[in-house]
Amino acid sequence: MEQTRTEIADFGEFGLIHHLTKNNETQQASTMVSVGDDAAVIDHFGRQTVITTDMLVEGIHFDLAYTPLNHLGYKAVVVNLSDICAMMAVPTHITVSIALSNRFSVEALEDFYEGIYTACQQYGVDLVGGDTSTSPKGFFISITAIGEVVPGQYVTRSGAKPGDLLCVTGNLGSAYLGLQLLEREKRIVAENQNVVPNFEGHNDLLKRFLAPVARLDIVEWLHENNIVPSAMIDISDGLSSEILHLCQKSEVGCLLFEEKIPISQEAKEVALQFNMNPSTCALSGGEDYELLFTIPQSYYEAIADSETITIIGYMTPPESGVYMQTPSGNKYALKAQGWNAFSE
Amino acid sequence: MEQTRTEIADFGEFGLIHHLTKNNETQQASTMVSVGDDAAVIDHFGRQTVITTDMLVEGIHFDLAYTPLNHLGYKAVVVNLSDICAMMAVPTHITVSIALSNRFSVEALEDFYEGIYTACQQYGVDLVGGDTSTSPKGFFISITAIGEVVPGQYVTRSGAKPGDLLCVTGNLGSAYLGLQLLEREKRIVAENQNVVPNFEGHNDLLKRFLAPVARLDIVEWLHENNIVPSAMIDISDGLSSEILHLCQKSEVGCLLFEEKIPISQEAKEVALQFNMNPSTCALSGGEDYELLFTIPQSYYEAIADSETITIIGYMTPPESGVYMQTPSGNKYALKAQGWNAFSE
Repeated sequence: MEQTRTEIADFGEFGLIHHLTKNNETQQASTMVSVGDDAAVIDHFGRQTVITTDMLVEGIHFDLAYTPLNHLGYKAVVVNLSDICAMMAVPTHITVSIALSNRFSVEALEDFYEGIYTACQQYGVDLVGGDTSTSPKGFFISITAIGEVVPGQYVTRSGAKPGDLLCVTGNLGSAYLGLQLLEREKRIVAENQNVVPNFEGHNDLLKRFLAPVARLDIVEWLHENNIVPSAMIDISDGLSSEILHLCQKSEVGCLLFEEKIPISQEAKEVALQFNMNPSTCALSGGEDYELLFTIPQSYYEAIADSETITIIGYMTPPESGVYMQTPSGNKYALKAQGWNAFSE
Repeated sequence: MEQTRTEIADFGEFGLIHHLTKNNETQQASTMVSVGDDAAVIDHFGRQTVITTDMLVEGIHFDLAYTPLNHLGYKAVVVNLSDICAMMAVPTHITVSIALSNRFSVEALEDFYEGIYTACQQYGVDLVGGDTSTSPKGFFISITAIGEVVPGQYVTRSGAKPGDLLCVTGNLGSAYLGLQLLEREKRIVAENQNVVPNFEGHNDLLKRFLAPVARLDIVEWLHENNIVPSAMIDISDGLSSEILHLCQKSEVGCLLFEEKIPISQEAKEVALQFNMNPSTCALSGGEDYELLFTIPQSYYEAIADSETITIIGYMTPPESGVYMQTPSGNKYALKAQGWNAFSE
């Protein structure tokens, strides 16, 4: 099937921005001025603004060999919304800046923006600005997300106290295993061009990697039930690294129970296929974008019946250190397996 | 002189961000949470938020051969603050995301951040977030700036009316001629390594290119004097292109008087050295970051004595088109000479 290819040069910068944003409909009553002026204007209605930004780089954060452009646009938005959720705030606006080389066509960019608009619609967020630039090589995406919160109701990483329960949403390790499946199929296809990738039965893992969810549902549920976490972070780098962040910022220790870490049956099976320990995938894998938070023990009853929230440990005095206890009772100091792409 | 070179890999991402932001002092009372959490939190005190973002790419927007890194950091901030000013708003916060290859040392990044902090201090702006990433090649900078304005007092590009006076701040063409001087010296030095660049007597032009000014002073002066522009834009792409933006968004025409365009004596002299028409440098050069705005004629008395603001024409009905009149009385249709890097 032959596809139309329109060169980006046929539009020029202003034409291109207009083309990509001409169907951009705003959903937020707070959006006074959107795309197309020097800046956007946002009203507040007595709320506080929460702001975060992320840079995604081709070859570092994503591989276009197995990332469809509409998924990339979608995911680039969601990872930023997840940071807003991790402050217990509700995302409202984004700006999107991209730099890309002329190996991309206008149709490719349209796919990318389709993913962006899908995420915006799903989360009720307005795209209100951005910048489009050439890049000598590679595709660079910089997204800034803005959210709002009732004054003082935001939650930082630094409020956990010894005795607080450590909770996590959903399950962990799936995104990492989805990535392993994609990497394996990429290698197989590279060796034999006639092979069709086979992901049968692993849709959930692929989806968790390609189209993650920002846990706005949990933020809303916690607000509705007047549950106020003492500290919160989203899991982008792996459970281990995020627990260490919470402990460092809150100046507390932690005891994590390995058997409590929620891991799906599918993730467990695929981990074993790859000869990996499922816990290691959860601890070091990353990109799950679940929420990790601490709550005072007084909230125990309120969350004990939740099917989405799992208590995986508790916070301890700082001198107790940060440990994981295995089912057999052994304790291991948690180590960050976080991002260090510079040393690669 | 031998300089210390620390590899970025020695820090890792979190160490690097901490290292670069450890002396970051906030100046805005509205900054509730700054760098170091999932997102920043900003309070409002009944103001509206204005937000803008820009992507700057090595080899497209800047050339490190003649751009010292501290100037680059400074300028990257100022061009964003200029967009906030162009909404008649006051900049308050920025986020800075960068992607760069390991050919840059930690010391180089420190220089870059020194420029960022200098701009922040000068404009009373807080750095509240960002992201640091590797790039396979090149240096990419994405800055988002946030400002505030009393509800409803922002000025867009779309409010100009026929009969309104067209005004510009400062003088135009200097930044472009500063760039020409830098490009010329780069060529000369490339041909003969023993030649020392000679910029004698042209400090103002170089400064206008390397360390531009965001006209916050004008925004404040206009607010203090209760002068409400009907439309406003900042000059990043050249006078011609910006006038066309104002006319398109406001659905008006314009008559610009060539002899009214403010150009410094130094810019005129250097333009002639390069066999260029000084007006062309002002019309198509760009990067001056002066403000271009329209005001109803009733404000004429209020700005007539200003040494910083020049009336350069007036707005006309849309059917009259967009023209420049030369001193001899000839009229030429204005054409955009704006950015179109994709077609290069």
